[in-house]
Amino acid sequence: MTTQLLEAKSKNTTAEMERAAENEGPSPAHMRELIASGEVVLPVNKKHEKLVPLAIGKNLTTKVNANIGTSPEVADVKSELCKLDAALEAGADSVMDLSTGGDIDEVRAAIVENCTVPVGTVPMYQAAIDVGGPEEMSIDSYLQVLEKHARDGVDFATVHAGVTREALPLLERRLVGVVSRGGSFMIRWMREHGKNSFLYEHFDDVLDIAEEYDVTMSLGDGLRPGGIEDATDEAQIHELKILAELAERCKERGVQVMIEGPGHIPLHEVEENVRLEKAYCRNAPFYVLGPLPTDIAPGYDHLVGAIGGALAGAYGADFLCYVTPKEHIGLPGPEDVREGVIASRIAAHVADIAKDVPGAKEMDREMSRARADRDWDAMLERALDPRRFSDLMDGESGEDQCSMCADFCALKLYREKSSHEQKAHH
Amino acid sequence: MTTQLLEAKSKNTTAEMERAAENEGPSPAHMRELIASGEVVLPVNKKHEKLVPLAIGKNLTTKVNANIGTSPEVADVKSELCKLDAALEAGADSVMDLSTGGDIDEVRAAIVENCTVPVGTVPMYQAAIDVGGPEEMSIDSYLQVLEKHARDGVDFATVHAGVTREALPLLERRLVGVVSRGGSFMIRWMREHGKNSFLYEHFDDVLDIAEEYDVTMSLGDGLRPGGIEDATDEAQIHELKILAELAERCKERGVQVMIEGPGHIPLHEVEENVRLEKAYCRNAPFYVLGPLPTDIAPGYDHLVGAIGGALAGAYGADFLCYVTPKEHIGLPGPEDVREGVIASRIAAHVADIAKDVPGAKEMDREMSRARADRDWDAMLERALDPRRFSDLMDGESGEDQCSMCADFCALKLYREKSSHEQKAHH
Repeated sequence: MTTQLLEAKSKNTTAEMERAAENEGPSPAHMRELIASGEVVLPVNKKHEKLVPLAIGKNLTTKVNANIGTSPEVADVKSELCKLDAALEAGADSVMDLSTGGDIDEVRAAIVENCTVPVGTVPMYQAAIDVGGPEEMSIDSYLQVLEKHARDGVDFATVHAGVTREALPLLERRLVGVVSRGGSFMIRWMREHGKNSFLYEHFDDVLDIAEEYDVTMSLGDGLRPGGIEDATDEAQIHELKILAELAERCKERGVQVMIEGPGHIPLHEVEENVRLEKAYCRNAPFYVLGPLPTDIAPGYDHLVGAIGGALAGAYGADFLCYVTPKEHIGLPGPEDVREGVIASRIAAHVADIAKDVPGAKEMDREMSRARADRDWDAMLERALDPRRFSDLMDGESGEDQCSMCADFCALKLYREKSSHEQKAHH
Repeated sequence: MTTQLLEAKSKNTTAEMERAAENEGPSPAHMRELIASGEVVLPVNKKHEKLVPLAIGKNLTTKVNANIGTSPEVADVKSELCKLDAALEAGADSVMDLSTGGDIDEVRAAIVENCTVPVGTVPMYQAAIDVGGPEEMSIDSYLQVLEKHARDGVDFATVHAGVTREALPLLERRLVGVVSRGGSFMIRWMREHGKNSFLYEHFDDVLDIAEEYDVTMSLGDGLRPGGIEDATDEAQIHELKILAELAERCKERGVQVMIEGPGHIPLHEVEENVRLEKAYCRNAPFYVLGPLPTDIAPGYDHLVGAIGGALAGAYGADFLCYVTPKEHIGLPGPEDVREGVIASRIAAHVADIAKDVPGAKEMDREMSRARADRDWDAMLERALDPRRFSDLMDGESGEDQCSMCADFCALKLYREKSSHEQKAHH
């Protein structure tokens, strides 16, 4: 087998590249060039049968990922398939199975089997759980899990290989410490064994598997800040530089790579975070979590993430990981998944308008035209979430007016001729 | 009577200035200077008995307004008081009564009587309705209504005096036309009578009343864009320049003034819109509606407005008018009011962190410390909306873990010593 990156470098336009280009601005040939330069990734695992290829990166629409998966306390395959349906129905561009409870293999297989969009995982979770905890991990147990995920059809995998021993002293200055599970697992392992990260030390072995199955590497930010106070600090930037180095190694091997980013960032540091990733990592696609420009709104982190995500996307972030209303509180259910996906899709579209992605502002033009015409059917058709629009419309509005202004509708008053003008016309 | 602006110009620090400075960064004397320079307004109508004075503008926290009020189809005093309660309970900094149906005088009197925050109105609505429609308005009927509102204790009033005949040809290029009710009323009147705006032509008479009762002028943007396609267009900027001229006339007369702004603006034009207002209007407080950086998400315009409002606030907008989930669909109910206020408060706080308003980031620091300590009671206490946090927490989390990660909590794993370290300690 070969990888989309190796094919692109050899100037072969694959069927997957053609398919991924279909709904996007760039031509298949341009898509291939963007993949070859590492500015776009096309996470396609040939074992993922139902996958509709989807590309992420420069000149493309901003994509949205939904995290699902079990926890030790809530672990049920059916519930996860229900969340998968909610994510797909709401329009997620990818899903990550972050399961840490129940039969992790069974959940993952069911998700991949039923999923039409790229599926990602964080193999380190299972690598720790299968052996009895993060302290018991080894490079061998890790590689076994990674290969199992690859064989199962996982299209992209988060690998927290940038968390190294050097960074540990930098974390002592932090308010919140470490909030990445993968990051905390690796730190636990390094402290227990007094050694540097086995992922960093054996990264070539990781790449062997990634190359063989064309699993796109999503280099995880295990040291992302967990509160805006810790944003853009030394530990975070230290890790980013290591991720940049690892990204180069991926590309040299023909392995596709994207970079994960924070997390909690105040609004005035969002631009700098995007700029640094693009500069250090030579424009590898940037995959951000939120970001969340405030810590104080639990219950609304989907909205907080939409604020940060819109701005990050506008500045060039390519891929938004959703945050649900349950973030910082508990495991999300299907309705939370739906809310999270919609919020991130709004942010992604706001970003697409700002960065002038072809076709983005045309959607707004069509909606605005429908509004000017007071054409409620056309509005419903053009709404990002027609279900919500329809629910709220119920009994409220219709014909050519809405209950907010009724006869005093500005659109109507502006369009209708005054009696003076009507007389002049006759 | 005199106005807060005249007092400030005479270097008198009023009791209202002292009270308004209490919870803000600037000292009472600095507050007075900011009012004297027109960079801050303190809308205080002495007839508004329950009012707790609140200042809006430079160096202060970003404030949030909630629009309530009847429509021709939904007009009931009790419902409006219920919305008022929802707005105040959710933390609105001001409310506007935009009633256009039922007994408008009764609704307004009830709202002012029960309201502890500044109350605003748009007198033109009643000025049109009382005489049988916008075509029948006159400067006399308008001034009568304005004076009635002033006597009733209204603290600030939107006056759409910047919509003039000159702008009408500029509107023909628009996709959406006019979406401001006040703007459409005045355009209707001008077209019917073939004359220029009676508000523009008789602005001194408006100021007579404003000065007498110290009603803060909120110069309305009757030509604000109704879709991002029309944003920052000639018509909008034409009106902004007239508002700047009128703002100078307010200040010369000792009348406090702020400037209303859009509306539908793509994210990449938000900064420019704030910059233009501040430049043209000599830093008069900027009061924005949303703004909404996409048109396609009806049902989620509170979230869309939070994206735009956070960015506008970060760039210097001082006052965010909320948008509810019902915007573009129908008249909001109490739950919509609550959602709208919370969304705008989140945006305002995100902006306050970005513009480094004293005390803002300390709130996030406290929340993050509670998270790092896994102290759920402290998190509840520090949540922007404790009710929502508590609802979502129900049965989900507690003790020192949450159902998302349970034993695999990163915070916990990072803080606990590894067995290796525990041994070393003993």
